[in-house]
Amino acid sequence: MKQQEYQLMRTLRFKNDNLPGVLGKLATAIGNAGGNIGNIRTVSLGHKHVCRDFDVFVDNEDHLNRIVQSLATITSVNLIEVRDEVLELHLGGKIKIVSTVPINSIDVLRKVYTPGVADVCRRIQREPSLKYTYTSISNSVAIVTDGTRVLGLGNIGAVAGMPVMEGKAALLQQLAGISGIPILLSTTDTEETISTIKNIACSFGGIQLEDIASPRCFDIYARLRDELDTPTMHDDQQGTSVVTLAAVINACKITGIDIKKATIGQIGLGAAGLVIAEMLYKFSGKPVLGTARSEASKKRHEARGGIASTLPEIMKKADIVVGCSGVKGLIAPETVRRGQVILALTNPEPEIEPSVALKHGAALAADGKSVNNLLGFPGIWRGTLDSRASKINEHMMLSAALALAQQTPNNELMPYILDPKVHKAVTKAVAKAAMASGVARLALDEDYFE
Amino acid sequence: MKQQEYQLMRTLRFKNDNLPGVLGKLATAIGNAGGNIGNIRTVSLGHKHVCRDFDVFVDNEDHLNRIVQSLATITSVNLIEVRDEVLELHLGGKIKIVSTVPINSIDVLRKVYTPGVADVCRRIQREPSLKYTYTSISNSVAIVTDGTRVLGLGNIGAVAGMPVMEGKAALLQQLAGISGIPILLSTTDTEETISTIKNIACSFGGIQLEDIASPRCFDIYARLRDELDTPTMHDDQQGTSVVTLAAVINACKITGIDIKKATIGQIGLGAAGLVIAEMLYKFSGKPVLGTARSEASKKRHEARGGIASTLPEIMKKADIVVGCSGVKGLIAPETVRRGQVILALTNPEPEIEPSVALKHGAALAADGKSVNNLLGFPGIWRGTLDSRASKINEHMMLSAALALAQQTPNNELMPYILDPKVHKAVTKAVAKAAMASGVARLALDEDYFE
Repeated sequence: MKQQEYQLMRTLRFKNDNLPGVLGKLATAIGNAGGNIGNIRTVSLGHKHVCRDFDVFVDNEDHLNRIVQSLATITSVNLIEVRDEVLELHLGGKIKIVSTVPINSIDVLRKVYTPGVADVCRRIQREPSLKYTYTSISNSVAIVTDGTRVLGLGNIGAVAGMPVMEGKAALLQQLAGISGIPILLSTTDTEETISTIKNIACSFGGIQLEDIASPRCFDIYARLRDELDTPTMHDDQQGTSVVTLAAVINACKITGIDIKKATIGQIGLGAAGLVIAEMLYKFSGKPVLGTARSEASKKRHEARGGIASTLPEIMKKADIVVGCSGVKGLIAPETVRRGQVILALTNPEPEIEPSVALKHGAALAADGKSVNNLLGFPGIWRGTLDSRASKINEHMMLSAALALAQQTPNNELMPYILDPKVHKAVTKAVAKAAMASGVARLALDEDYFE
Repeated sequence: MKQQEYQLMRTLRFKNDNLPGVLGKLATAIGNAGGNIGNIRTVSLGHKHVCRDFDVFVDNEDHLNRIVQSLATITSVNLIEVRDEVLELHLGGKIKIVSTVPINSIDVLRKVYTPGVADVCRRIQREPSLKYTYTSISNSVAIVTDGTRVLGLGNIGAVAGMPVMEGKAALLQQLAGISGIPILLSTTDTEETISTIKNIACSFGGIQLEDIASPRCFDIYARLRDELDTPTMHDDQQGTSVVTLAAVINACKITGIDIKKATIGQIGLGAAGLVIAEMLYKFSGKPVLGTARSEASKKRHEARGGIASTLPEIMKKADIVVGCSGVKGLIAPETVRRGQVILALTNPEPEIEPSVALKHGAALAADGKSVNNLLGFPGIWRGTLDSRASKINEHMMLSAALALAQQTPNNELMPYILDPKVHKAVTKAVAKAAMASGVARLALDEDYFE
């Protein structure tokens, strides 16, 4: 699979005369040189000068240099510095373990450590379910990767993938109050991966597999799901399919397509594509047309109720097209049909730019930036842990997708990622589904769902 | 091995007339009933009444009830409530993972997560040592147990041992600024334990084995030490021996014994005893007399330069006796010789009560409460991680012991556990030794050692 290039983000600090029009000139110059502007922050404001930080996305260092050179021609603007705020934020890593109790006296020490702790250990030994009450196990999720398919970067190894795992861990705490614990695997052997995870699973309330290449990820996930008492999901499979199903439901609402009657096509049947197609089938009741380079992928798709197809056939027949192919520009603009919904989800660069798809007649088009897994896994885990579910089953995933769709503002594809209400709604939907489907080990009361 | 009973700690809240003598009457009554009083905190103080919390250690629930009944006879004292503060402090566990960056805007999200994070991943892929700079790996230590020998509680299983692991993790952050990550193993197979730990070791800056029963722990530790690039220690072996060596050095200073000429006896040759004996031999240059129930233990002791002996012989010949037998009261008081140093370290109840040993002529006697591993591992890890050492070798452990001995106030056996200066001194000694012995991967400058 061709690996896409991720852009760089740099922060450029400018000082310029405090006159109308200068910001516009500056932004225009950056844009003309191909720079994509993110946030602009005012650092200081004087009566004569203003100092601002511009976050700018560039293709690479050369591109950055070209932008900087093009700015030199603008009078009354001084480029003070170019900073890499991304690197600065990563210094020392992004997560840490902290004590929930300040241990500032021998008195506290004797309670949280020996001799006091012995009584707590004995209670859990006698009554194992007390681990939910007196340890952090029930509020933690291991984020496990072997680094064989990290973002669109490919097989970069588990250690190089750590910044992604730390990011997910940081977001689990931020969005759902859960401790995410990155576990990096140095093995890429399927059996060893399974046995290693099984041997440490009792340390955590859940196992989130991440960025493990297909097809190995299918076996690993299925085995762990079936053999472990600890709930397990693979974010690239289950997480992505939940979020994508929500996006498709909303896309249908916006365009007036009836999902139960629509023809759906899935391009790319890797970890994400295969399970998205399966979820869309389960939800719509109509088999999904699926295509992929490998025959094995298509066989897996058929085994899950799909219909093997081709790219031309999908573009011709499908009302809804979902792309997870990993191939930039795979969808030729002229193959887009009027009224089609196209979710070209390959990151960082999609199968077709949404603007191009819309120009060629698509009723709705979006790329991977709009359909983010962050909307799924935090609430899915919160609901799973709260209900002490032994599994994350399809009922819970469908409920999560419906909750996400319901939380989306009118005419939008997805809700706002950092909105706590959204994650709370997913949480409750998942917990309720866990109880209804018999995998919950705790009966949550009405207060929980209010 | 006989398992000792750990006491319970309860907090009793009293309200009584604010008159001189009442506190004394109360404390005397508790003491007469066999309760051991810890901290006393004034909760509220009025001109008529005073309300206080007493932390009281009792043998078990029956004992607590007897104490409560005996207090009923004291006039002007009201027992308001009996609380279990230990359990209260354990609610929800004692540790959590937090983000070091508040993710409160899409702006920050795009830096700590996609798309920004991709650049950091690629940098680490190109230059693996950047993991030290841009991830939390280099500031984390896995605390790994299979729960086969937790405290003096025995084989209670890894999950029941979690409160101990969380306590160590909380203290690693508190005392050394390190993220301690409990990893609970559901396997007790030696080879599986080794391969599981090897498969996840790249997630952490170090591996601290905890509470793994002997003799399995010897193989597991030795194999991981030799085969992993990640520094590894077993706290019950290396940690305990560092702290005990410091205590012996100080005991010699207090009593005027010359350790290089003294005869040293080690009672109990499990995880702790075997390595303590070896450390004492390496430091003093004189083989240590060692005894244990099993012949295999004595063989291991001889293989490490020790002399197999018996309990009577040790009590007769040794100037310094160290007990790690796990057997309460193993040392008969009448066998204590005048001028002996006796460190009876079995927890929670020693081979001989220090007061009894002193009464029978010992020059110095202490139990396990005085010789706490907490004095060792935090600084050992800080120095190891700071110098990016690939191993924790004997040179580093001896240096840690000497630093601890130097940090001890005159006529004391050990320094104060919660004193940051102590842990800083151990840190620097360990880092220096790592550099001097060639296992450091970073050359720390003079500023570090100031």
